[in-house]
Formats: sequence, structure tokens, C-alpha cells
Amino acid sequence: MSEWIRVFAPASVANVGPGFDVLGFAVSRPGDIVEVRKRRTPGVVITDIRYIRKQDIGKLPQNPKKNTAGVAARNVLTTLQERGVVDDQSGVEIKLRKSMPLGSGLGSSGASAVGAAWAVNLLFGGTMAKHDPDLILACVKAEATLSGFHADNVAPSMLGGFVLIRSYEPLDIIPLDAPENMVSVVVNPEYKVSTRMARAALPSHAPLKEVVVPHYANVAGLIAGILKKDLLLLGRSIDDKIVEPVRAPLIPGFYDVKDAALSHGAFGCSISGSGPSVFAITDSLERGEVIGRAMAKAFEKHSLQSKTYVSHVNREGAKRVD
Amino acid sequence: MSEWIRVFAPASVANVGPGFDVLGFAVSRPGDIVEVRKRRTPGVVITDIRYIRKQDIGKLPQNPKKNTAGVAARNVLTTLQERGVVDDQSGVEIKLRKSMPLGSGLGSSGASAVGAAWAVNLLFGGTMAKHDPDLILACVKAEATLSGFHADNVAPSMLGGFVLIRSYEPLDIIPLDAPENMVSVVVNPEYKVSTRMARAALPSHAPLKEVVVPHYANVAGLIAGILKKDLLLLGRSIDDKIVEPVRAPLIPGFYDVKDAALSHGAFGCSISGSGPSVFAITDSLERGEVIGRAMAKAFEKHSLQSKTYVSHVNREGAKRVD
Repeated sequence: MSEWIRVFAPASVANVGPGFDVLGFAVSRPGDIVEVRKRRTPGVVITDIRYIRKQDIGKLPQNPKKNTAGVAARNVLTTLQERGVVDDQSGVEIKLRKSMPLGSGLGSSGASAVGAAWAVNLLFGGTMAKHDPDLILACVKAEATLSGFHADNVAPSMLGGFVLIRSYEPLDIIPLDAPENMVSVVVNPEYKVSTRMARAALPSHAPLKEVVVPHYANVAGLIAGILKKDLLLLGRSIDDKIVEPVRAPLIPGFYDVKDAALSHGAFGCSISGSGPSVFAITDSLERGEVIGRAMAKAFEKHSLQSKTYVSHVNREGAKRVD
Repeated sequence: MSEWIRVFAPASVANVGPGFDVLGFAVSRPGDIVEVRKRRTPGVVITDIRYIRKQDIGKLPQNPKKNTAGVAARNVLTTLQERGVVDDQSGVEIKLRKSMPLGSGLGSSGASAVGAAWAVNLLFGGTMAKHDPDLILACVKAEATLSGFHADNVAPSMLGGFVLIRSYEPLDIIPLDAPENMVSVVVNPEYKVSTRMARAALPSHAPLKEVVVPHYANVAGLIAGILKKDLLLLGRSIDDKIVEPVRAPLIPGFYDVKDAALSHGAFGCSISGSGPSVFAITDSLERGEVIGRAMAKAFEKHSLQSKTYVSHVNREGAKRVD
């Protein structure tokens, strides 16, 4: 049997502020570990899934066609076959170590897909570059089996930093170097928001002058803040006129948590992914801890326990670990 | 009598691509010259207006309350009085040399306002910095007397480069350094588009998924292209899903002109301001001349003569000239 390849894929904050569906960033923790090795039989199998959170145990399908890690691995394998890198007899065994909660708004399924895709690529010689559109697409399509066609989780998880999806057709992925001192605080309450409900809450139309123009002005400010390394600009541009207002009511205590973050010095705060996690931005780990405690306390007042992750932006994306 | 102070204020391309109402850049040519000197009587007078284009002669009001240069000068004078820089007996005489066509979509009235505001500030000791919100507001309010409250012409004309208006309330102006090799081609056909009609063409609402999200993804790409100095990204992000489709029909031959630009190597092309000028982006003056000729030729096929301006982005904004 071949050796195991083990890859860490970071969690990600998608839908960053006004950047619904187009902007995400990777965090240094949490993340998933995906292990793969070659097998003699064609195809992909998942032989083990371990969970960090007790209540998640058994919730993910071990059927590789229904698990984003399995689907992404299969997609990469197919691409490698089409490119003549591997023959059609190649097979892969996967072990998944979920090191973050499921359904948290932290791109859990995306991280599994990314970890599997990158690991399979490395297993067969690492012929694909991280920004290879087929590699990203392998993960996007895996995600699509679960929660719709979007790349703002998987692209940052793969590439690290902030990633802008300028266009989906054709896929146009723009990596944006994150400010070095940027610290993200992510607070994940023990609460379930269904992605479907979160999607259903979205309006079908938005008023141009009152909403759309100020909204994209903030998208512009956010990108400028990232690239000018101006965390204050980045933070005040986290001003989402469209999605946050309709999704906030799905998260108990959201506005109290946001107030707690901002009143403790966060530069900006909004929903991570489709929730229920809430993220905030600051410029030091120490300040991040203070903000995180204040946010967790605000959730407690709404009878929700939570887990807090304070970390620098992950700038490497998926990487091999031993 | 005091000496004349003479200021050049550049023309600007506002509503850049998808950046309607929030993004503009200054061009090196054309621009306006505004001359000011102190007078012994309080208030502002305009004693002369010269025009570069014959058919514009006499079209601008010499009444300082109805001319953006006069209003902006008055606003700055008031601020300087409030700040105790000048007394309430101070007066200003203005001469205006319109060096660009009126109603061209090149921020003509904005450039006059900016030239007058900066000149008056210099006349009384230059106590205001260019990014002083009151200085920009003096011009925005002057523009508002003519064509609505927007800053994406006056801010670039004052500051140079690209300028993002992240928020109007409060005013949040973000200067963005333009790529050094960026060349703009602006072709101004002899045709009149009323700003009012151009505004009336705008939809009141836009569909979220099909239009708003891809639109702001392009706004994000545009800002990223500017700050990453990636002219290809900048160019392909000039993809306006909301305003160009409804305003293009107001400009005869617009799509032929755009096709001509893109097929001759322009990285991107759209309407300048509210038209009728059309701008394109490239990376050399030589290529810009080729593109400009092709665009002018396309207008000719629609029986429109035009004037072409090929120049680097103006990176200085308003400046004193002698």
C-alpha cells in the first residue's frame, strides 16, 4: 500500500460583509485534516470520518458520492485521468478528520472538499497548481452537490488570504493578499441555521439608488481596504445593505453580538457564510480575545453556548502536514 | 489689485464601468483653466468665460450663483470665513477658460467647480488640503445645483487618479493610485445626451442574483485591478450590468464604438459619465491612438463627428499653472 498524504484545509469566512457570493477569506483555525492514499481498486472510498464535536458524530455520509471530500477527490482523479497523469485503474482511500463544527457558516464542507482535492493532487505527483481552474472547479462542483454553486468558501480555503470570485462564468478567481496584521474573530454558537432558509430569506430584487449603489460602494471599499492594508476602511466597509438585514433575524441575538464586537473595538462585524457564526475584524490577537469574549457573552444572554476562534488570516491555504 | 492665480483642473471619467455614482478617474487632457484674483467688494463675480468649442459660446451662465465655478468659489470663501482665514469683506473675481466641450460626459462643470475651489483656496493662503472634506463638499454642492449630488467627477478632478466615493453620508472619499501605464481614450461625439434623460433611464430595482451580485463582483474586480495594477483585470471588470444597458441606446452607435475599441485591443470600454463620450482603457499612448481612431470611425458611420483625447491618467488633480 502507498503512504498516506495528510493535508490541512482551513475554514473560511464567506459572504464577507457586502461580498455575498463573491468574497471570502481563510482563517488559521479551525480547519479540516484529510488523509488519502492510493488503493488498488479504481474509484474513491471513504473509510473513516472523525468528528471534533460530539453532536456531529455520524452526520456526514460515508458514501463518497454524497460527501464533498469524496466528490472533490473523484473530480480531481477524473481530471488527472483526462490529462494522462493517472490511468483509469487508479483509486483513492480517504480518511476525514473534521476539526470544525458542521453547519457553522465556516465552510466546513468546502474545507473537506479542498483538503481532499489538494491531497489527491499531491498523492499523484502534485501536477496541478493551486490556482488551476480545474482544481478549484473540482471543489466548487463538490460544494454544489450540497449547497449550491459558489466558490467563496473553497477558493480561500485552497489559496489562503482573501479571494474574490469576479465571475462564475467563466470562473475568474482573484487572490487578494490580506493585510498581515488582520485578525479575525469567529464566534460559532450552538445553533442551526439551514442554508436553505438563509437562501430563501434573500430578496429577489433590490432598489437601485437606496440599496444597490451604497452596497457596491461598500464592496469597493472592502477591496480597497484589503489591498491598501487599511483595516479601518476594510472594517467600516463591512456594511451589508442586502443580505445581513434579512439573515440576521435567523441568528438569535445577532445584533447584540455585533454591538458587543463593535463596542469592544472591532473594526467591522457581520455574519460568516450563511451563519450562525459571526465574524469580526481587528488588528491583534489580544484585542481579538477581548472581542471574542464579549461576543460569546452576548450569545449567552440569548441562551446560546458558543466556540470562539481568534486567529490571523490564513495566508497559505491548503497545505500538506505530517 | 491682487495678482491672478491660475489653476488647471482636469476632466474626469465618472461612473467608471460598473462604478456608477461611486468611481471616477481624472484624465490628463482635456481640462479647464480657472483664474481668480481678490477684489475689494465682497462676494464672487465671473467677469469672463471663454470657450474652446464654437457651438458652446455663451451657453454657461455668468451669474456666479448659477455657474458651478461661481458656486464652488462662494462655498470655499464661506468656509474660509467660518474658519477665520478671511474676513467677510473678501471678494473674488473669476475668469473661466472652458478647455473642454460642455455636456460631454467628461465632468466639465465639475472641473470648473474644482478649478475655482482650489484657486480660491490658494488665493487666500492655501490653508485647505486637497482632501479636506469641506473643499470637496464645496464642489459637490456646486455640482448639485446642476446635475445632482454626486462626487465621482469632482473628487478625481481635485485629487487626481481614481477616486472611490465609499459613502455619501458621511462623505468617505478613498483615493486609489492609478496604474502608471494606464492610458485612457475618450471619444466625445458631437451629440447631446441630457443628464436628465440619462438619469430617467435608470431602473428603480435590479434582480439580486442575475444582476446585482455579478455587478458588484465586477466593481470588486475593478478596484482590485486598479490597486493590483492589473490592467487586464481592470479592463475585463468594466462590465456594467445595470447602467450601460439602459444608457447605451441614448448614444447613437455606442455598441459599434465599443466593439471597435475592444477589437483594436482596448482592455475595457464603456460610457464616460452619463455620455455621450465613450472611454476605453489601454496601456500605451500609441495603442490608444489606434483605438481612438477606430472608435471615431465607428461614430462616423453613425454620422457623428467626434474629438478624441488619448492620455495617461492624471495623477495630480487640480494644480496651479502659470
